[in-house]
Amino acid sequence: MRRPQQVRAEGLPERVTIYEVGPRDGLQNESAIVDVAVKAEFIRRLVEAGLTTVETTSFVHPKWVPQLADAAELLDQLDLPAAVRAPVLVPNERGLDRALAAGVREIAIFASATETFAAKNLNSTLDDQFAMFTPTVERALAAGLSIRGYVSMCYGDPWEGDVPVDQVVKVGARLVELGCHELSLGDTIGVATPGQVISLIESFGQAGVGVDKLAVHFHDTYGQALANTLTALREGVTTVDSSAGGLGGCPYAESATGNLATEDLVWQLDGLGIETGVDLEKLVSTSTWMAEQLGKPSASRVVQALAG
Amino acid sequence: MRRPQQVRAEGLPERVTIYEVGPRDGLQNESAIVDVAVKAEFIRRLVEAGLTTVETTSFVHPKWVPQLADAAELLDQLDLPAAVRAPVLVPNERGLDRALAAGVREIAIFASATETFAAKNLNSTLDDQFAMFTPTVERALAAGLSIRGYVSMCYGDPWEGDVPVDQVVKVGARLVELGCHELSLGDTIGVATPGQVISLIESFGQAGVGVDKLAVHFHDTYGQALANTLTALREGVTTVDSSAGGLGGCPYAESATGNLATEDLVWQLDGLGIETGVDLEKLVSTSTWMAEQLGKPSASRVVQALAG
Repeated sequence: MRRPQQVRAEGLPERVTIYEVGPRDGLQNESAIVDVAVKAEFIRRLVEAGLTTVETTSFVHPKWVPQLADAAELLDQLDLPAAVRAPVLVPNERGLDRALAAGVREIAIFASATETFAAKNLNSTLDDQFAMFTPTVERALAAGLSIRGYVSMCYGDPWEGDVPVDQVVKVGARLVELGCHELSLGDTIGVATPGQVISLIESFGQAGVGVDKLAVHFHDTYGQALANTLTALREGVTTVDSSAGGLGGCPYAESATGNLATEDLVWQLDGLGIETGVDLEKLVSTSTWMAEQLGKPSASRVVQALAG
Repeated sequence: MRRPQQVRAEGLPERVTIYEVGPRDGLQNESAIVDVAVKAEFIRRLVEAGLTTVETTSFVHPKWVPQLADAAELLDQLDLPAAVRAPVLVPNERGLDRALAAGVREIAIFASATETFAAKNLNSTLDDQFAMFTPTVERALAAGLSIRGYVSMCYGDPWEGDVPVDQVVKVGARLVELGCHELSLGDTIGVATPGQVISLIESFGQAGVGVDKLAVHFHDTYGQALANTLTALREGVTTVDSSAGGLGGCPYAESATGNLATEDLVWQLDGLGIETGVDLEKLVSTSTWMAEQLGKPSASRVVQALAG
């Protein structure tokens, strides 16, 4: 299999942690409902390919996300090595109860950076979403869990257009104050360009939230995801969200194009000599297999190029 | 229509020249043969959208590229403003004769950076290709034409794998010595990553070929085109090749994925406040229309997102 030539570049990290979101953010946004055994096999193969952090599922109410209604059953079927981080998304205390019952050690909560998305996705407001997060986070911390905070719509929103940087930083900083160990800054509709990425990361720094606490999460709706990721790496970010095979998308976005594909990210990082621990060949093979399960071609350009 | 938020970033040029290759590199590699009137309309609309440099066609023998067999007829139908640069590709002296007869003022020649591609595409060798270029370039210069030199397979080759940087620089520098005013460094199979891009541009500089003489030409086969383009801009390059709607591909590559889409490039440049003169809305409308002519969806993510 073809591999990228390795030529390093200055000003980039030695090592990047890939936070794999395919099983959760990917499958949540695919129209097909995937069998629980296939999901378990998918996660097993992702870990076997070297991914050390895999968001496995979500304990959101099945009425809202039927694709992940089997969360408890899936976790029951998984038998991952102890070193693998396997966070799950929880929307509220009821979700936390289910996650705790399943023995989860790490959770993620999902906040909005805009009023309209808070209203549409969380049936809440920018302020009131914290009324939901506060008891969830407090109880999770008391139970010894690590908590990631997603901030969605960081760079634009389908209804409001541009989003003020200060508003995003305010939501993110409040999540950190609550007790989140990491923020994932989401370009939920894929519109960001590099100047915005630099500006947001620097603004978080000025607010006391350093790059060690930031992850980036880009969607490729406008073809910008990998260039924005590279920009974030130059700013010192070392955790990048991506989705194996480019699975998923955002139901609120203008297009079905989904997350940055893990393979396209790994191609770049491998070429730059940045360590990820991922075996690209095994990953491509996994996404090729998953595309067959879903009955549609992978959105990853690397998978398309190498699997053909 | 949604537009990117504008946030500038340091270390990037104020203005970029987009060298539009859709009508030539794009249509040459599409399986459909497009009617000459549609091509003329396509070029007219690209210019109307603000593109100032459009490679219109190729005077290669119709046996090799039947898609562009109508080159003379097309040029006859075009009536472009005098300020628009409308280069054509010429493979040899016979092609030059036809270009001169059509009143062309600017040509491009196409060199290989690898032995195997020189053999397969030009039926020549790395050295012998210059036997073909030398009389072509000398006569073109004597006729007052500007000449661009394409260097293909700069970052990898389907048969030889990695390509030594020195070999690429040697081919490029020789084209400049011959009289080319500009080099277009082609990632013909789309495998490059940013370290390679920096290394090649710096090596050209050490050989006396500055960034003012360099254009970059990335294919998106592995999803790397826009991140590599951003990297080249940071190195000081200000001319970028792209193809409206992402038309085209390389018949020698592992995948059909083609050139960097002009719309995806313009989205990034607009977001960064870098001037191009292009009206994104008109460009998207043109590529949407062209996709209908070709009977298949545009490969540009911006076109997909905005036209939907």
